[in-house]
Amino acid sequence: MKVQGRWRRTIEVDDTKTVIVLDQAKLPYEIAWMPLRTLADAARAIKDMHVRGAPLIGVAAAYGIAIALREGHTFDDAYTTLAATRPTAINLKWALDEMRRRGGDPWEAAAAIANEDVAACEAIGVHGASLLRKDRIRVLTHCNAGWLATVDWGTALAPIYKAHEAGISVHVWVDETRPRNQGLLTAWELAQHGVPHTVIADNAGGHLMQRGEVDLCIVGTDRTTRTGDVCNKIGTYLKALAAHDNGVPFYVAVPASSIDWTIDDGRTIPIEERSGDEVRFVAGKQIVAASSPVANPAFDVTPRRLVTGFITERGVVTELVKP
Amino acid sequence: MKVQGRWRRTIEVDDTKTVIVLDQAKLPYEIAWMPLRTLADAARAIKDMHVRGAPLIGVAAAYGIAIALREGHTFDDAYTTLAATRPTAINLKWALDEMRRRGGDPWEAAAAIANEDVAACEAIGVHGASLLRKDRIRVLTHCNAGWLATVDWGTALAPIYKAHEAGISVHVWVDETRPRNQGLLTAWELAQHGVPHTVIADNAGGHLMQRGEVDLCIVGTDRTTRTGDVCNKIGTYLKALAAHDNGVPFYVAVPASSIDWTIDDGRTIPIEERSGDEVRFVAGKQIVAASSPVANPAFDVTPRRLVTGFITERGVVTELVKP
Repeated sequence: MKVQGRWRRTIEVDDTKTVIVLDQAKLPYEIAWMPLRTLADAARAIKDMHVRGAPLIGVAAAYGIAIALREGHTFDDAYTTLAATRPTAINLKWALDEMRRRGGDPWEAAAAIANEDVAACEAIGVHGASLLRKDRIRVLTHCNAGWLATVDWGTALAPIYKAHEAGISVHVWVDETRPRNQGLLTAWELAQHGVPHTVIADNAGGHLMQRGEVDLCIVGTDRTTRTGDVCNKIGTYLKALAAHDNGVPFYVAVPASSIDWTIDDGRTIPIEERSGDEVRFVAGKQIVAASSPVANPAFDVTPRRLVTGFITERGVVTELVKP
Repeated sequence: MKVQGRWRRTIEVDDTKTVIVLDQAKLPYEIAWMPLRTLADAARAIKDMHVRGAPLIGVAAAYGIAIALREGHTFDDAYTTLAATRPTAINLKWALDEMRRRGGDPWEAAAAIANEDVAACEAIGVHGASLLRKDRIRVLTHCNAGWLATVDWGTALAPIYKAHEAGISVHVWVDETRPRNQGLLTAWELAQHGVPHTVIADNAGGHLMQRGEVDLCIVGTDRTTRTGDVCNKIGTYLKALAAHDNGVPFYVAVPASSIDWTIDDGRTIPIEERSGDEVRFVAGKQIVAASSPVANPAFDVTPRRLVTGFITERGVVTELVKP
């Protein structure tokens, strides 16, 4: 990914073995890099969404283990602390389990997980780009599943970057994605790479589909069941319904690390309830009065029947099969 | 409606025949009343959404005719100016046509239209309250179709006020309704009357319906075709899809003044495209960078097949019949 003209990853390790992450709580208004020196730093960065996006959360947790072990924590303590940061994205648990399974030098194991994430995302890009063959194709996406949500390339946006590089005229409808406005991260990274796009309120996507202005939807996922129920940012389900109602293909970009092979029914996935202040305050200003309570579920589940297909690192499929 | 402890209407005429409106561009942060002294005042108040809500727009336009005639404009000039302010709500054209049809003293005609709006809304409240019979009922609404959107009572909220008055435990899920956040007006007026409610991001409603936390949806409309296609605030269609998918009844509160008897197909209703700055700026702060274009369609159309029934001033019906 290109940040301020340089190719960078969202998470890097410098010569002094300090882990550095792009601080997404400040984007798109400020580009700042944040060091993670302790287990507490890593846990807080995930919990407070300085790093976010299911695949990146996993990689940050893997490095969190390496940091914690250097700091003198036991593996189990580090695992417990990091696993408790956020409940929905399965990549978090997946990466922690991988760190245990792989053993050896934890810095090498974390680096391998990071490199594998880059490779998986690039493969998703190559496979997904095969869906974007028209001369001019208009894709709608929700939230941010771009390179900011991964180590590089992204999941839902990887096919868009690959198609754009190949000279296909892609235009992206970017859902604002209240309450955290991750759509503005999507707009920012698309702008960095010169991909044409238009930001819309979350309410607008159904209308655009009714008007025939969306050719395809691609979203990411925080956890997909082996049966294909897709947990993703709140509001994804509404767009899947609209796509289904208008015959617009609805694809989910899903690396293996986002699949929960242990459950069949998406309704059993724990849905994070975040602070109501995320709705109540916008840009530092209180918009909802104290006299009105606020609810803020952060994810929803799109049932398999609304999904056209899954873009995985092994190809575009309609059924998920454990490697 | 109760504002600062006094019973008021959203539009009133004082002893000097000055038309006074509650300035909704400042709500819920400031309660300010705005005089409309000229045709230009009236047109600007509608266009810039100092008065908003389909029924109230109609009544404001009726008074706009009276103001314009006093100012020396011809009826036709006043009609043309006011009709051009906003394209979607049919109440605007309806009220202007009524002013022409009724003739006589324009102040009396406008007052009659205002009084009829109050009576229609109260009747909608009485009929709609029959749908809210459970001991504890949870209603989801989108945008603001409360007393702020009418002269008094509201359309979608009138049944809620009537049920609340009757001692039924009503709880309202209030969609924020980006980009203009009219949900905050709904929250404000519900709070004024002590009706329990919770504000949610527009993305959350589908998830709440999946979880069985919504018993009923009620929305207003800016224009409904004689066949029952419902044009309403952008995002309404997405909630109707979710209601349909989850077996949640979806009702539209519609006074006769909001029905367009001349068209059969909701897709032919003109959809207002408002300034992208409504999405780009929140609470005075620019959240979307200049490098990202913005689109801002203000309404969408929910097809008849997704509507359970219509709450009209003549009763709850499944088919609209011209009086």
